[in-house]
Amino acid sequence: MDEPEGCVFCAIVAGEAEASVVHEDDRVVAFMDLGAVTPGHVLVVPRLHAVGLEDLDEDTGAHVWRIGHRVGRALRRSGLRCEGVNVFLADGEAAFQEIFHFHLHVFPRFDGDSFRISADWATRARHLLDEEAQAVRRGLAGL
Amino acid sequence: MDEPEGCVFCAIVAGEAEASVVHEDDRVVAFMDLGAVTPGHVLVVPRLHAVGLEDLDEDTGAHVWRIGHRVGRALRRSGLRCEGVNVFLADGEAAFQEIFHFHLHVFPRFDGDSFRISADWATRARHLLDEEAQAVRRGLAGL
Repeated sequence: MDEPEGCVFCAIVAGEAEASVVHEDDRVVAFMDLGAVTPGHVLVVPRLHAVGLEDLDEDTGAHVWRIGHRVGRALRRSGLRCEGVNVFLADGEAAFQEIFHFHLHVFPRFDGDSFRISADWATRARHLLDEEAQAVRRGLAGL
Repeated sequence: MDEPEGCVFCAIVAGEAEASVVHEDDRVVAFMDLGAVTPGHVLVVPRLHAVGLEDLDEDTGAHVWRIGHRVGRALRRSGLRCEGVNVFLADGEAAFQEIFHFHLHVFPRFDGDSFRISADWATRARHLLDEEAQAVRRGLAGL
């Protein structure tokens, strides 16, 4: 996909916008999130503009993940407070994506930090899970 | 790592515990989460027991991600309600990990679903971000 006008992550990748970079290579750039959940919150983005899982090629996605994996391990060795790590992707507005250039969040967690998740978790009946698995398998077969 | 006694995901991988499987290959198994955030919630787990980012080898991690990527795209083609997708990893108790066998969450999102995240997000000053970036780079160099 061509770089869309005004994409802040494309501007960072191009070196045209300020960022505190932790890693860059020929395919990805990783830098500190301005609106951090906790100190040490990193975003890993592909250099080529992609919005989400749908238009990101699989090899680039796997490389984004690899760098995220390393950043997660690095956080535990950084001296920043880090007792755990979350990796998070928001793909689409309904999933809380706010900047429409693919970005993997990697952030440290510690006892007493402010990050919380909530949902109406309930144990689903096996026949529903089996039906849903069938639907996902159908989706996989359609790729 | 050897399979620890009583690991429910090792039991699923071994075919000794019930699961609604959507994909399996020589390295990973993907199946429906019993306590789903939304219908269609899938977990992707490596066959070999690993707890988290620290003891999961990078190639297996990248494969887990690739399957998660495909599952995310499949959810949008599944007929299940899916207007967005979240991918989530909890690495460590402080990061809300509850089952200590590495698992990548992939779940569909839609307007009006119950999933919420919250944190004391605040824009961080550049000098703090630069210091934190330096700490992460130090961590990366130590891998």
